[in-house]
Amino acid sequence: MDALSQKSLDLHYALQGKIEVVARKHVETREDLSLLYTPGVAQPCREIQADYEKSFSLTRRSNLVAVITDGSAVLGLGDIGPAAGMPVMEGKCALFKEFGGVDAFPLCVDTKDVDKLVETIALISKSFGGINLEDISAPRCFEVERRLKEVCDIPVFHDDQHGTAIVVAAALLNAVKVTGKEMGKLKIVINGAGAAGIAIGKLLISMGFGNVVMCDLHGIICEGGEGLNAGQEEISHISNRGHEHGTLADALKGADAFVGVSRPGLVTAEMVSTMNRGIVFPMANPVPEIMPDEAKRGGAAVIGTGRSDFPNQINNVLVFPGIFKGALSVRAREITEPMKQRAAYAIAGMIPESQLSPEHIIPSPLDKNVADVVAKAVADVAREQGIARL
Amino acid sequence: MDALSQKSLDLHYALQGKIEVVARKHVETREDLSLLYTPGVAQPCREIQADYEKSFSLTRRSNLVAVITDGSAVLGLGDIGPAAGMPVMEGKCALFKEFGGVDAFPLCVDTKDVDKLVETIALISKSFGGINLEDISAPRCFEVERRLKEVCDIPVFHDDQHGTAIVVAAALLNAVKVTGKEMGKLKIVINGAGAAGIAIGKLLISMGFGNVVMCDLHGIICEGGEGLNAGQEEISHISNRGHEHGTLADALKGADAFVGVSRPGLVTAEMVSTMNRGIVFPMANPVPEIMPDEAKRGGAAVIGTGRSDFPNQINNVLVFPGIFKGALSVRAREITEPMKQRAAYAIAGMIPESQLSPEHIIPSPLDKNVADVVAKAVADVAREQGIARL
Repeated sequence: MDALSQKSLDLHYALQGKIEVVARKHVETREDLSLLYTPGVAQPCREIQADYEKSFSLTRRSNLVAVITDGSAVLGLGDIGPAAGMPVMEGKCALFKEFGGVDAFPLCVDTKDVDKLVETIALISKSFGGINLEDISAPRCFEVERRLKEVCDIPVFHDDQHGTAIVVAAALLNAVKVTGKEMGKLKIVINGAGAAGIAIGKLLISMGFGNVVMCDLHGIICEGGEGLNAGQEEISHISNRGHEHGTLADALKGADAFVGVSRPGLVTAEMVSTMNRGIVFPMANPVPEIMPDEAKRGGAAVIGTGRSDFPNQINNVLVFPGIFKGALSVRAREITEPMKQRAAYAIAGMIPESQLSPEHIIPSPLDKNVADVVAKAVADVAREQGIARL
Repeated sequence: MDALSQKSLDLHYALQGKIEVVARKHVETREDLSLLYTPGVAQPCREIQADYEKSFSLTRRSNLVAVITDGSAVLGLGDIGPAAGMPVMEGKCALFKEFGGVDAFPLCVDTKDVDKLVETIALISKSFGGINLEDISAPRCFEVERRLKEVCDIPVFHDDQHGTAIVVAAALLNAVKVTGKEMGKLKIVINGAGAAGIAIGKLLISMGFGNVVMCDLHGIICEGGEGLNAGQEEISHISNRGHEHGTLADALKGADAFVGVSRPGLVTAEMVSTMNRGIVFPMANPVPEIMPDEAKRGGAAVIGTGRSDFPNQINNVLVFPGIFKGALSVRAREITEPMKQRAAYAIAGMIPESQLSPEHIIPSPLDKNVADVVAKAVADVAREQGIARL
């Protein structure tokens, strides 16, 4: 076991849980007991019974997100089951609170059955103000999210898809500025057509980022291609507008940007050298599709990874705390496409143009100011769209 | 609206939730991020994948209880639904933390279907170290608890049943001492044969409290009687050993103790006067079966209610924090009958014999020392029974 893993394990044993549930008011006197519990508590119950909407004011739904997984696609570990996925969920909840001030509670659901997963989450959804889905394997995650959005009256957001897409879009916005490229004329190659890759592709296309070419293990995804799952089929109609065929290496020739959400080592310096002053985001974790020094050797103009030990760490902790903080602040029932787009612009805009450089296109994941800026952007869009309820 | 209700409502609006989820370690540095979240968090995940039992050491399962309702029998308000039940659940969670140091998280499940309720709770049970069921209507609550105990590998405890039973038993133990009655020769009348009443009856019988006579709206419950639900039928075989028939008034003649978990005003001073120096616990809330001054007029020897404005408040906040604290401390998979019995003795034993009096048979619900004493008793029993896993 490497030193970091050992240190993390020791810390987990010492903490016995990374989150804690505390009382917002101490109970010291008989009056406390009668106000917070019986008999006084009957009154807020009656108020909610008479007006369901008041559950968002009188309980922690006001500021509470569920972080839910089935443990089927945890980090790069795969299907490790609900209990083993919990340390990731707890970590995410800690980040929600630390960065966004949003209360988040982790739940692991012990089923891989889509119907049961959807039903279980729907049945407990009235306990929360929002639902953050996490580490659910593709393509099941698409259906789970779609169906939950239909039946829940609170925002449902699969962070592996949309959080990743938003932070990549933010980094790309600034990379375009740094390189002097033209956003609408980019050719962007995304390798990995799972949950994250497809969501990134769809968001970039919706934002007007030129032509997106999706690749998977079999090479470039083409409209009408065989063996595509529902998500891949859907994006095949709006991506790869040049109808290219071939391998990842073929796709990269002349491309302006590469986004990797796939496997270590799939990209070489030679492949990068065929790009057009490439913006290279190899985000496989912990070992990227190409190491930054190799990408630089291939002539990459801007490089960003998921790692903290290189410049430009593209990490969705920049996204999810602010997204939910904003949605909860105006009690929006959903996270819309315009909210995601504006969140990407808000994150990119955190770096003044004068400070932009190839080594600095994205705020530090430790920058606790980002969440407020993202939250404000999300709330503004909700008001513009007329879906703010506060 | 009365002043207390208004004050409670104002407090609920001000608090916007009575519980809060916080991080147990702040995230300030890149190292924090890499230890609490990726990439370090992969190691505790792997450890749990290899040994499921470690989920109780490496996550908050170590000290975490779910407080779960379907909103079908909330306080005296009845079936007010999941969202409207939440203020009670949050209050309970605050008490868990304040009195027992136990983290508790409230969940309202949006179904009245027993199968769905059981399945939903079972599917999320691996996120918790224990399950406290709350305010689920009888007789559904019996089946929900029984089935969950079968499928969950953590303690499942319906507090309305067992918490109430334990605290009543504790009060009765001391009332017997104060009155000089003989425990094994008592005649105890319990009015109200729902979840709480039946659980009280069963626990008192198991502890050797003489003869228990259960009454419901139709009078004394007899073995072989008609219209009994499963729980009533079960207890009919071990209660009312004198095979009495008749009304509540008939039952009370010569009885040593009365326990009311029913409706206001069902007992008169005249009825109390027919008892044998009656121990009278009219616990209907907020208005008891008989007011204390009336019971005293009827010659009651000891009086206890659920109210904070009279002596001897019989409140299960004396029970549930310690019960779960104890079970979690030794990682017991269940709350057994001997644990409940010993918890009752532990609570009763909190008052030194020299301080016992008719006005002082039970500790104050605000006494924060009780939970530790109950927890120790529960842990001791778990070790004696060989079901402690720590």
